[in-house]
Amino acid sequence: MSLTLEELSSILKATLHGDPATLIEGVATLGNAAPGRLSFFSNRRYRTYLKETRASAVILAEGDREECPVATLVMDNPYLGYAQAATLLNPEPVAAPGIHASASVHAGAHVDSSAHIGANTVISAGARIGANCYIGPGSVILEDTTVDEQCWLSANVTLCREVHIGKRVRLHPGVVIGADGFGIANDGEAWVKVPQLGSVIIGDDVEIGANTSVDRGALEDTVLEQGVKLDNLVQVGHNVHIGAHTAVAGCVAIAGSAHIGKRCTIGGAAAIGGHLEIADDVHLTATSSVPNSISKAGVYSSGVPIQENKVWRRNVIRMLHLEDMAKRIKALERKLK
Amino acid sequence: MSLTLEELSSILKATLHGDPATLIEGVATLGNAAPGRLSFFSNRRYRTYLKETRASAVILAEGDREECPVATLVMDNPYLGYAQAATLLNPEPVAAPGIHASASVHAGAHVDSSAHIGANTVISAGARIGANCYIGPGSVILEDTTVDEQCWLSANVTLCREVHIGKRVRLHPGVVIGADGFGIANDGEAWVKVPQLGSVIIGDDVEIGANTSVDRGALEDTVLEQGVKLDNLVQVGHNVHIGAHTAVAGCVAIAGSAHIGKRCTIGGAAAIGGHLEIADDVHLTATSSVPNSISKAGVYSSGVPIQENKVWRRNVIRMLHLEDMAKRIKALERKLK
Amino acid sequence: MSLTLEELSSILKATLHGDPATLIEGVATLGNAAPGRLSFFSNRRYRTYLKETRASAVILAEGDREECPVATLVMDNPYLGYAQAATLLNPEPVAAPGIHASASVHAGAHVDSSAHIGANTVISAGARIGANCYIGPGSVILEDTTVDEQCWLSANVTLCREVHIGKRVRLHPGVVIGADGFGIANDGEAWVKVPQLGSVIIGDDVEIGANTSVDRGALEDTVLEQGVKLDNLVQVGHNVHIGAHTAVAGCVAIAGSAHIGKRCTIGGAAAIGGHLEIADDVHLTATSSVPNSISKAGVYSSGVPIQENKVWRRNVIRMLHLEDMAKRIKALERKLK
Repeated sequence: MSLTLEELSSILKATLHGDPATLIEGVATLGNAAPGRLSFFSNRRYRTYLKETRASAVILAEGDREECPVATLVMDNPYLGYAQAATLLNPEPVAAPGIHASASVHAGAHVDSSAHIGANTVISAGARIGANCYIGPGSVILEDTTVDEQCWLSANVTLCREVHIGKRVRLHPGVVIGADGFGIANDGEAWVKVPQLGSVIIGDDVEIGANTSVDRGALEDTVLEQGVKLDNLVQVGHNVHIGAHTAVAGCVAIAGSAHIGKRCTIGGAAAIGGHLEIADDVHLTATSSVPNSISKAGVYSSGVPIQENKVWRRNVIRMLHLEDMAKRIKALERKLK
Repeated sequence: MSLTLEELSSILKATLHGDPATLIEGVATLGNAAPGRLSFFSNRRYRTYLKETRASAVILAEGDREECPVATLVMDNPYLGYAQAATLLNPEPVAAPGIHASASVHAGAHVDSSAHIGANTVISAGARIGANCYIGPGSVILEDTTVDEQCWLSANVTLCREVHIGKRVRLHPGVVIGADGFGIANDGEAWVKVPQLGSVIIGDDVEIGANTSVDRGALEDTVLEQGVKLDNLVQVGHNVHIGAHTAVAGCVAIAGSAHIGKRCTIGGAAAIGGHLEIADDVHLTATSSVPNSISKAGVYSSGVPIQENKVWRRNVIRMLHLEDMAKRIKALERKLK
Repeated sequence: MSLTLEELSSILKATLHGDPATLIEGVATLGNAAPGRLSFFSNRRYRTYLKETRASAVILAEGDREECPVATLVMDNPYLGYAQAATLLNPEPVAAPGIHASASVHAGAHVDSSAHIGANTVISAGARIGANCYIGPGSVILEDTTVDEQCWLSANVTLCREVHIGKRVRLHPGVVIGADGFGIANDGEAWVKVPQLGSVIIGDDVEIGANTSVDRGALEDTVLEQGVKLDNLVQVGHNVHIGAHTAVAGCVAIAGSAHIGKRCTIGGAAAIGGHLEIADDVHLTATSSVPNSISKAGVYSSGVPIQENKVWRRNVIRMLHLEDMAKRIKALERKLK
């Protein structure tokens, strides 16, 4: 796919400085771009690459235009413009409709005739696959689960029984939706399983990364609202509710019944406790640990960065005796009064 | 499935207050229950829902009976009663015995005639599948592995060669049992693999959550004793031993050769070091980091909760200079003596 | 497989003290070894087992020879010697070449005639499988991906399209290579996907543990250089570069565009931020959190170990008020001047 700068500036609603007829055939980083490529500049730390770029054009903000030696597409949000241009220039291959000979599709399943059902997939009784879906090799869709139109399941994805996937949902390999939540009651000696009777509802335009798992609800449903984005190896416990357009980075653990607001961003390796509420527009930096509700939008953090091991060894001992330090300060203050 | 309150009170050994003939057809939360439903009350924070519930009956403790507007089943442990009642009222579907046409069962494998072997499964040479097992679609059971009776493998489960699974074990999608442990020796330049020659022994009534991995032992075996419950995305290193009825929440990392006692509970995202011993009845709260052995039963914790980012930024700098703070306090104390 | 001590001492370049004709048939721990077995001693905490071992021979360092009651193979690095001996004594079974009848191999894929393609695998168009590869059951290899000679994919491994795997690479179940990185741009309301156009390049002799995911690059490639070892449940974000012979323990999160040097060791459950650089020969202990670059080789740490819950509760409150404590110390110092 190729586009002229004129076409791109019109689609992106960007102001073009340069030859409108220049043909763009793809995207590249500032440092690696050859002529015919489009790049973008949004991180000041790559300024030296901007000055020397051989790209045919660069998407950037007005304030950075001076430093660019080639044609520019000026936008307030160059990274967004790049995302849109890269999508246009790299259309995804469209898989042919039909069911691969090696797929096991139950007679009681419904598969839209426009859907692609890959090799060695399993579609169980009562499952429904919508129009233009791509169900990649090795994926398993269990009983009575519904997948709405235009979904893309990469490969080896597992959808457990009776879960509901919205439109244009993208699921990467190893994703598990609807496994039982961790519900156990103690009878004084052993754990007794609490049946997990709820479902999972995945909204439109959700994307979920490799090996992430989203558990089914215990009694009510686990819900990911529209536009939620989960990275890889994220754990979403039963009855969790994640508001629209919240983005969760890799290796985050979200305990059961947490209710996370809309438009939040959760940094990598954060841990969110159960039965708590996080307001809309909360931003948690990486490794944040959240044991209680957050009622106010804002940026929150926890975690202690590394030090040289021998320095850390001395500091960490003090961390374990802070209560004592505090008391000694108080005693000193009393003496000096 | 439906039961009268009389039947339920007899099975649960609960004291019934209300009409014994009332028919219960299912369970629901206090807030969502319609007539014909049974609910439970065990968390004081849901008291307002109790007062307004439309459930036909509620399982609760004697002390909460006054506040309940409907019939009650009184028990010391209402959550346990709920687990038992919900299990009775929602019997799992029983899969028909037999081997799906698309399954690859090696001629040298033994599959009990009462077992259900799902679509696109692989059962390798020497594997043994016991009576009434359910092996869900896409699961792979490698050479010489044994699965005892009444096990349930959801879908896309992988059991590596020569591991041993007890009775009534439940494994969720993406579970990997018996992959090689992380054994490497350095030859001064590169890492040399240490063969992982041990096995994994999974006891009866163990349940393991989605995408959790339990590595095989290096020389001896990795062991999960009976009744152990692991949540999703847990890592169990080689030679780990987990005592009976210990429960491990999601995203916990357990390093090799850790020996964890019986009846422990490990909170989510905790990290347990290798070659250490944790006593019976130890309870670790979420995000606990355990670098050394714990010899005494009790509740242990670590981790620092979030603060507003700008407050955290100031505090975290201090954390990196605690040794200095401690010395300054000592100097002040000396001056004031 | 069995070897005499003479043969072993020659292969390992170890000094033998004992009968060269003694036949060794396998390896075992010091405590469990029966005659005919070889053991090793490298951790002083197992000294009592050494003194009582019934092994036929023990690999150990010169300084420990006195304490050993049986024949010895003396080496500077006994654990390395053990790894080599155990590998020799336990040769891996060689799978027969050929494509299992249940495999789906696309007509446009190329599979070397010496490769073993297991049951229910999928090899897509344009994929290339090299000589003597073992592709285990349920694995999926997508379009245009190449796997060089002698690779071993256990089972249920997923290689996404257009990724490149070197020679002698070992991938455990649930591994996902080349899923899309977490690239999203905000349009003021919703997240817009940033196409992930790079690839993944896995060097020779890399081994990757169960359920680990390595994302494809956004524009350039994610690279694991030769000899890298990743444990289970590790997340490697897009554009990450890991230098040769670096070893990463379980549950580590590595954010996008991190550049990690050669010969590093990363302890379990560590979290490494994005867009940073870690020098060669850096060693991070378990649970380390790395928000910034590390320019100097050495050992680095962070994390706070557990305490009894009631002690921790008091200390953690102080951690949240360290800035205040620091100011009070400063005030005291001023008063005393």
